[in-house]
Amino acid sequence: MMLYDSLAQELYTEICHIPLIDPHSHIDPRCPTARSLDDILGYHYYTELAHSAGMDKSPLAAEVEPRERVRAILYHMAHFDNTIQYQWFIEIARAFLNFQGHRLSLGDATWLCDTAERLMASPDWETRVLRQANIEKVFLTNEFDDALDSFDTNRYVPCLRTDDLVFHLDKPAVRQRLAKATGIEVGDTASLRQALTVLFDHFTRHGAKACAISLPPDFVPGFVPDQQLSAAVRALAQNDPRDRLLWSRGVFWMLAEHCRTFRLPFDLMIGVNRRVYEQGVHQGQDLFDQRTSLIQYAPLFNAFADVTFCISVLSSGQNQELVSYSWIFPNVVTSGHWWYSNIPAYIQQDLRARLQAVPKTKQIGYYSDMYKLEFGLPKFNMYRRILAQVLADDFIRPRVYTEMQALELARLLLRDNVRRIFNV
Amino acid sequence: MMLYDSLAQELYTEICHIPLIDPHSHIDPRCPTARSLDDILGYHYYTELAHSAGMDKSPLAAEVEPRERVRAILYHMAHFDNTIQYQWFIEIARAFLNFQGHRLSLGDATWLCDTAERLMASPDWETRVLRQANIEKVFLTNEFDDALDSFDTNRYVPCLRTDDLVFHLDKPAVRQRLAKATGIEVGDTASLRQALTVLFDHFTRHGAKACAISLPPDFVPGFVPDQQLSAAVRALAQNDPRDRLLWSRGVFWMLAEHCRTFRLPFDLMIGVNRRVYEQGVHQGQDLFDQRTSLIQYAPLFNAFADVTFCISVLSSGQNQELVSYSWIFPNVVTSGHWWYSNIPAYIQQDLRARLQAVPKTKQIGYYSDMYKLEFGLPKFNMYRRILAQVLADDFIRPRVYTEMQALELARLLLRDNVRRIFNV
Amino acid sequence: MMLYDSLAQELYTEICHIPLIDPHSHIDPRCPTARSLDDILGYHYYTELAHSAGMDKSPLAAEVEPRERVRAILYHMAHFDNTIQYQWFIEIARAFLNFQGHRLSLGDATWLCDTAERLMASPDWETRVLRQANIEKVFLTNEFDDALDSFDTNRYVPCLRTDDLVFHLDKPAVRQRLAKATGIEVGDTASLRQALTVLFDHFTRHGAKACAISLPPDFVPGFVPDQQLSAAVRALAQNDPRDRLLWSRGVFWMLAEHCRTFRLPFDLMIGVNRRVYEQGVHQGQDLFDQRTSLIQYAPLFNAFADVTFCISVLSSGQNQELVSYSWIFPNVVTSGHWWYSNIPAYIQQDLRARLQAVPKTKQIGYYSDMYKLEFGLPKFNMYRRILAQVLADDFIRPRVYTEMQALELARLLLRDNVRRIFNV
Repeated sequence: MMLYDSLAQELYTEICHIPLIDPHSHIDPRCPTARSLDDILGYHYYTELAHSAGMDKSPLAAEVEPRERVRAILYHMAHFDNTIQYQWFIEIARAFLNFQGHRLSLGDATWLCDTAERLMASPDWETRVLRQANIEKVFLTNEFDDALDSFDTNRYVPCLRTDDLVFHLDKPAVRQRLAKATGIEVGDTASLRQALTVLFDHFTRHGAKACAISLPPDFVPGFVPDQQLSAAVRALAQNDPRDRLLWSRGVFWMLAEHCRTFRLPFDLMIGVNRRVYEQGVHQGQDLFDQRTSLIQYAPLFNAFADVTFCISVLSSGQNQELVSYSWIFPNVVTSGHWWYSNIPAYIQQDLRARLQAVPKTKQIGYYSDMYKLEFGLPKFNMYRRILAQVLADDFIRPRVYTEMQALELARLLLRDNVRRIFNV
Repeated sequence: MMLYDSLAQELYTEICHIPLIDPHSHIDPRCPTARSLDDILGYHYYTELAHSAGMDKSPLAAEVEPRERVRAILYHMAHFDNTIQYQWFIEIARAFLNFQGHRLSLGDATWLCDTAERLMASPDWETRVLRQANIEKVFLTNEFDDALDSFDTNRYVPCLRTDDLVFHLDKPAVRQRLAKATGIEVGDTASLRQALTVLFDHFTRHGAKACAISLPPDFVPGFVPDQQLSAAVRALAQNDPRDRLLWSRGVFWMLAEHCRTFRLPFDLMIGVNRRVYEQGVHQGQDLFDQRTSLIQYAPLFNAFADVTFCISVLSSGQNQELVSYSWIFPNVVTSGHWWYSNIPAYIQQDLRARLQAVPKTKQIGYYSDMYKLEFGLPKFNMYRRILAQVLADDFIRPRVYTEMQALELARLLLRDNVRRIFNV
Repeated sequence: MMLYDSLAQELYTEICHIPLIDPHSHIDPRCPTARSLDDILGYHYYTELAHSAGMDKSPLAAEVEPRERVRAILYHMAHFDNTIQYQWFIEIARAFLNFQGHRLSLGDATWLCDTAERLMASPDWETRVLRQANIEKVFLTNEFDDALDSFDTNRYVPCLRTDDLVFHLDKPAVRQRLAKATGIEVGDTASLRQALTVLFDHFTRHGAKACAISLPPDFVPGFVPDQQLSAAVRALAQNDPRDRLLWSRGVFWMLAEHCRTFRLPFDLMIGVNRRVYEQGVHQGQDLFDQRTSLIQYAPLFNAFADVTFCISVLSSGQNQELVSYSWIFPNVVTSGHWWYSNIPAYIQQDLRARLQAVPKTKQIGYYSDMYKLEFGLPKFNMYRRILAQVLADDFIRPRVYTEMQALELARLLLRDNVRRIFNV
């Protein structure tokens, strides 16, 4: 994907000089880069698109030889070479593997695999990948019991991911993990609060800069009185749906209280329905319901005026709500372009609306959501190109901003707002 | 409507050389073309827009002299000459009636009527119309008891339309038609299944290539156990809304089972509310509720992994869901730009998103939905122009595709995917 | 904001020559213009954006010195100089205050305040502001007990705003105001009807041209039988939510009946949730729920075929419904671009769809929604520029319209439709 508008191309070049802080990823800091082409093509975008385009799931089994899997996915890529996800892959191959072409075919498999293994084994690979994408820091997604030592928390910023606590506390395994991580057996509201405090204390002492969660369309936050919550927590294992509603809401509200106490922004990724396609590939089963509204979060935003909520939504329809809620609520911030909205047609429209109506200091431009560092470059480049074009068309050509001012706006979106909001 | 971008214009010219297969229409194969201007302007788009713009319904009465009706509609067209539907009409007049102007007025009525009658009476009219639009095959919409002989099922491909079975089986007339068509009196689950099997057998032996239905926003597919379905079928005439829910869902599910058995794709046209404007003109009474979600169809898509569902939606908001569901579910395919989404502003945005995120082999570009063959040309031309522009801007100029590759993509959307998916 | 496309720029210049009729504002006809910069920056768009960007509410207190408030808001404007609302302000400063720059800073505060006070004190200020924006008439928003004399109702057209009657009749103060305004104590359906008749009679005799209301997403109009309504009216003060539903619907339906009798169009502004952000600034607390549908209004549109409903919606998703409902229902008209949809990214897309599918005689292009006349210029200019660009790209360049025809369409949208629909 190239920009063919010379003004946008110039801006893009300048924007690429802004050192990025990536405020949301799934990087494993102990193994941040790919070690083979299989690690690249194992990203769920490729496995799910290959499966959607006709590949059965057998090549994805653990026992299959990685190069066989790569060949199966490359073969099916011919069916989705129109997609932006294919473009990401081409850009990785060209930027990192010295691939010279513009299309890939099965015939390239061996050369690509060989080249990938050779180059990725280089001791400076991680540094080179980060430098080439111009990424300075990467936020992580840490389970509450992840070990937070033995990696550079300055480069890889821990974030407390809380889906398990809010939605899976009825599972004995989750409660055991929580007990082990905190030394506290959760049996009522007080012990639950204690356990969360231990977690937040542990995380913030290890450099955590955000609390994060993904939420289904029907989730409605609300305060749960201590006694009710205690009853629900005691009944946790009984799987009564009324109790589930209570303890889920109760834990969520308590997390917001801890965000306030520990001064952490709360990343809300709103609207995902899990396991919609039951037989889908790993991480390729979730979808959404466009009938989702931020109105459900109004009590939360009102109750926690001193917590910054960084909101991601899944649809362009919901983006208009997000624009409006960020324009009105001081503590609501737009955050990135998530998953099914992370394609140019929607990013462009959603970005234009945000830039026209949300204070520029309240916008987190983009995050990678990546599992391997190599994806930072093509994903951020996609965003940087769209941003450059929107700045050219909506700001510079209509003389709203000078080029200098437009670049300052880009810097806010890609770096300075993240630094200020997350205090990094 | 002309393209003013020369690259898009070139692509458009090439795209027009791709022989079309139109996968959804309402053509009467025994009377496929218009015989007068009245047949053209009788299309509900014109009667409903004229009525919306102030024409009362009296000119539409059967006893009114056709040229009077034409004059009434032409007169009111001056109020909607801004619409794309007006452009379709101009394009028909220019392409088929040798009209030389760019605007039409009441003063043109006589000349147009005379010319239409003269030319449309020509024995090669049907062939000429199809050739000029470059349409090779046209799918039909057949009621379950339509006669399927005495026309060329190679050119006019039968499709079993099932709205009556799923939503109107409580009407004695429908049950009588079903009994007559199948020789089976439906009284329980077993006889219902038998009757459907007779229909599918009859249709597929006569070249039917799809089963189709339109569905209201609140329809939620689901399996109904045999015994429950039998009870609901027995109580059919009693109009109990709970029973209606049961037999509607039961028949629908059974149709999907037959699609599996008979290897027919199932066209789902999701989201239409019937008779919203009660006093509207014929076929100009239906609207939608934007609060419609494909999440309701997840159980269906999961249960019938081996049935291809070709999905049409009514709103651009729902298109984002469709893009996402087609990206994830192997058996979900995007299909055309339907009705209230069939205008350039929405086609363009919806098409861009599909091309960026759905495997190219899983997209049925466009269908005409036409009642008379003359509409194939302007409707497909509208789509071909938008497609050409999107290919120029999103694929060729950014160097994602060469022109050749872009044209191959167009060929998939307009021809090859239809052939493969519907096995024609 | 400048147009950089020369064809669009030419069109814009011509469009600016069309004398506007502004069909919805909140102007106080006895004090229509600003008298200081504080009156300009007191517009809720600036106070809410400044608050959203970090300003606490203390500078907004009545006792604060106006220039202090101006400085506080100007200071925070640096955080939202990316927004279209900031552009409105720059355009006011340049057009009316002889400001020469393209950016504003705190350093400009004194000069701006001095200049504003000096110029706004000029006796011909009102005339000059209207002439510069080329506004001929401005519709008002009048409470049912507003005095309608002592201003020029030819220039400032009264409109009966009915939110209080439909949603706040349970408040003793509202009932007292109603009794005072009409001389009727409302105690049942008959007296309610009498009171409304007195109001409509009073308003229409004083030149009122519309009845208007804003409605929450969950409002579902419907007929309420007289007896039920009487019971609900009698129980008004009891605050039973079932009664509230009844009297709200009953009063609303009765307003529609009066619109029919008095031949007034009914402006429906659909979708606003009040007081969502509880601690927000004055008028900066309301938001919406994208899950709103016009399907709820079908019974109303069907029952009142002879009342014109001018519909405003809050989201681009709902705009597609509005386009479709206006295309089908003769008595449904599109009206302006409201509030959270009143930014270029949404206006452009929503306008394109309307122009492609709704009869041109059924579109009210734009209204200002302004509280002070100075905002007419930048808001209408924003719309005029977007309209000019859409006309250039979708009508003139594709040879759908000549420039002359495009300007006639603009004239319908900005003037002639308002004149005809509201009978001014």
